[in-house]
Amino acid sequence: MSDNELPVGGLTRRSLGGLGVAAILAPSIASARRMPGPDRYRPQVHYSPAKGFMNDPNGLIFHEGEYHLFYQHNPFEAKAGHVHWGHAVSSDLVRWRELPIALGETAAGQAFSGSAVYDRGNTSGLFPSGAGGLVAIYTRASDTKQAQEIATSTDRGRTFSGYPGNPVLDVGSASFRDPKVLWHAPTRRWVMVVVRSREHRVMFYASSDLKHWSEVGSFGHAGLLGIDYECPDLVEVPVEGGGTRWVLFVSINPGAPLGGSAVQYFVGTFDGRRFEAEDGATRLADFGQDFYALQTFADVDGPPVAIAWMSNWLYSNDVPASPSRGAMTLPRRLTLRRHADDWRLVQTPVPLDPIAGSSILSGPRPKRTGTLAGAAVPYGAALEVVLRFEADPGAILSVRLRNAAGEMLSACFDAGTYPGFVVDRSGTRGFRHRYMVDRAIWSAPQGTTTTDMRLIVDRSSIELIGMGGEASGTMLQYFASPPDRLEVIAEGGAVALMQLEVRSLNG
Amino acid sequence: MSDNELPVGGLTRRSLGGLGVAAILAPSIASARRMPGPDRYRPQVHYSPAKGFMNDPNGLIFHEGEYHLFYQHNPFEAKAGHVHWGHAVSSDLVRWRELPIALGETAAGQAFSGSAVYDRGNTSGLFPSGAGGLVAIYTRASDTKQAQEIATSTDRGRTFSGYPGNPVLDVGSASFRDPKVLWHAPTRRWVMVVVRSREHRVMFYASSDLKHWSEVGSFGHAGLLGIDYECPDLVEVPVEGGGTRWVLFVSINPGAPLGGSAVQYFVGTFDGRRFEAEDGATRLADFGQDFYALQTFADVDGPPVAIAWMSNWLYSNDVPASPSRGAMTLPRRLTLRRHADDWRLVQTPVPLDPIAGSSILSGPRPKRTGTLAGAAVPYGAALEVVLRFEADPGAILSVRLRNAAGEMLSACFDAGTYPGFVVDRSGTRGFRHRYMVDRAIWSAPQGTTTTDMRLIVDRSSIELIGMGGEASGTMLQYFASPPDRLEVIAEGGAVALMQLEVRSLNG
Repeated sequence: MSDNELPVGGLTRRSLGGLGVAAILAPSIASARRMPGPDRYRPQVHYSPAKGFMNDPNGLIFHEGEYHLFYQHNPFEAKAGHVHWGHAVSSDLVRWRELPIALGETAAGQAFSGSAVYDRGNTSGLFPSGAGGLVAIYTRASDTKQAQEIATSTDRGRTFSGYPGNPVLDVGSASFRDPKVLWHAPTRRWVMVVVRSREHRVMFYASSDLKHWSEVGSFGHAGLLGIDYECPDLVEVPVEGGGTRWVLFVSINPGAPLGGSAVQYFVGTFDGRRFEAEDGATRLADFGQDFYALQTFADVDGPPVAIAWMSNWLYSNDVPASPSRGAMTLPRRLTLRRHADDWRLVQTPVPLDPIAGSSILSGPRPKRTGTLAGAAVPYGAALEVVLRFEADPGAILSVRLRNAAGEMLSACFDAGTYPGFVVDRSGTRGFRHRYMVDRAIWSAPQGTTTTDMRLIVDRSSIELIGMGGEASGTMLQYFASPPDRLEVIAEGGAVALMQLEVRSLNG
Repeated sequence: MSDNELPVGGLTRRSLGGLGVAAILAPSIASARRMPGPDRYRPQVHYSPAKGFMNDPNGLIFHEGEYHLFYQHNPFEAKAGHVHWGHAVSSDLVRWRELPIALGETAAGQAFSGSAVYDRGNTSGLFPSGAGGLVAIYTRASDTKQAQEIATSTDRGRTFSGYPGNPVLDVGSASFRDPKVLWHAPTRRWVMVVVRSREHRVMFYASSDLKHWSEVGSFGHAGLLGIDYECPDLVEVPVEGGGTRWVLFVSINPGAPLGGSAVQYFVGTFDGRRFEAEDGATRLADFGQDFYALQTFADVDGPPVAIAWMSNWLYSNDVPASPSRGAMTLPRRLTLRRHADDWRLVQTPVPLDPIAGSSILSGPRPKRTGTLAGAAVPYGAALEVVLRFEADPGAILSVRLRNAAGEMLSACFDAGTYPGFVVDRSGTRGFRHRYMVDRAIWSAPQGTTTTDMRLIVDRSSIELIGMGGEASGTMLQYFASPPDRLEVIAEGGAVALMQLEVRSLNG
């Protein structure tokens, strides 16, 4: 359907004619007409390509001072298809520069998801100088086959040459994809993590030269199966307080509990052959509806840094184009926190100081009820909101972005009997879809009244990071008219703000 | 908050004053004022007590021609607390008669969830006549301790006598509850399935007399952990085409993916001591937000029959009282279906012929687009809608209940690229809550265009059963004014209805 139809629960404007719901949409459509062009939804501080369609992050690697973000990309139109590897680089993970396409379609098929490594020691023998270089490992996908190929680059990822011996791993399957390759130091081998998607199995292969792969283990038929497993990642993550665990990320699509796409993870150990989960639990990396295909950067010092695609396949082709479709989450550093008998992935967005704009609100607020703070917000600006607070039991702390047309986007923490965070996009009217839920909910341990909430709000997204990074809620959101006011409100009890920082971010 | 405040995303009417959202709510409040009293939300064909609060089903058993439904019940007010065992009986699983309370509070605490068995052979020695009788096994819960007690009845569950030797199982824990006891024929012993809720473990105990229990195994730290495991059930379920598997149901609350309460299940084998899951997968029994604490009836011939609580702890105390709060799902027969590499729980609501009302729509409809059928619906009646259909790829089939005030409740099947069901309560305006999502989504295998959908719509709920019982979506819903019209509409392509049956159901 076209973006202007503003689908609601499987309906279109036209078919809503007789219904009161039309009264909700009419003003938003009017406002939309008054707005500047499609770039009113263009992400300001989240990476999106200049044109076309983008989905999964691929080949994330830090190399020679540059962070490389490759990604699934249709350069021809803002719809999924004709998948190439797009390319962008950054020196600080927040300011990105788009570069020419790195990998394209061939007669053998599209260039599906994969990863990149620095073949430092020229283990592949594919770098005549012996100096080594970047190697991309990806799925070449036709309608009938998915096999793994490699390509090399000696110019810092600007151009790649396909290996003449491709594919390097072909099991004769049409649902075998998304290779993530890492250097496993203890066994001094390359390890490939790749999914037999329809069989819901994560396969592990090992290689000494990136060209010859032997199966060494598998994990799966575990957690939430969905229709397909996709985009696995396996990374060693530091545990707060000491030690590490290996975390296996597996994306599923469709069939996520909120509908469509989601990322789950398993915590355990990895010996270079087998991943052993520490328990039978499955955990979701994000409680929102728009967080998929999480991948981590290779060759980064310290805690891993991850990026996910900020959309959902159920409507990624239908959301308003800006004029491109598809954006990435902010990069987040990953650690693990032990929590009673449970593990929690802790996500910390990278510092945004390089793109800091003007301060909008600042300083603590004494404990009281009602409006704790409010301010006008710059037209179309991205915002960062940082709160630390102590709530009376039963109090609800809400951060609301609104406009004169009566639209509202809110994030709240409820310190009641069932404490938790809510990201609520039900009051935004720029776009609805029958497969788009209006809000997402995360439950905190009972008795939680003192915690923190960080929001990064861009023109068409909101990311909530709460409970010291344990809660991550990522949702697309579309105002018909941009919000012009932000308010922090306490209801049902008093709330003290130990910290309040609201600033704009420069695109 | 009071029911009249109609909370929306953490807001109340008052605080919405300046916002357009108020325009959504105003008419509904006006309508609500014009409506008859609270019984406008009183379930007509779903069991709810005359007054007070109800949550988990307990002690489900078929005995001497009666189906017994005991349940967690606060007889004093329509809020959770002072938990007794309420009691109702039925001869057909659809018409229930409320009986006096079966188990009450004692100095030792409240009567939390549990089960009931027929001690046919007087294995307990607690039936002097030797004729045997009913034994209830439940958790006696104080603020500091949760231990398992038993009580006996010789008058078909009308009255119970606590066993003087209670508790029969006390491990000194404050989070050890919800015993489900079954007779395990192969080992000729009673087996108790009970949870260490906060440790996320399901414990198995065995006994020859219901009075002395020994630990024989455990399962857990598996699936979705939530904050607590609750209300386990273990039952042998027939597999379509032959054979059986054991299904272990584990409810979690809060922390479900949609927010709050949910039921997951594991498929495997049980030898009387240990449950061995067939894989590491976790599966949700229902894709809606209002399905919890599923339990099956003891001593039923054929496939097991299950009932769940039709609410969610995040708002069960806040939804409109009718005047009681809490209702049960329709009883559903359970089977298992093998689906590629996956297992699907198949739920089939029991026949509703005993409460059949008048036929509203009937007969097939040829393949076309637009409104396929429409009819007025009786004021405040419960409805059953049965559809079998074939959709063109890309078509959306919607069933809509609406009223002149512009409210709408819809259920649809989308036969597009990502086929699936949606239950959408976003167009109802009788009650909103910050923790209540507006819709729930279930994804079908790609390419699905021919399937079925059955809806049971009561005054404050909707149950969707689709794909031959593989999809179950249960949601509370609150019109401000009752719906007066039903429509079946095809959009985006043509749909043929091979079967269409809409009838009212007698309360």
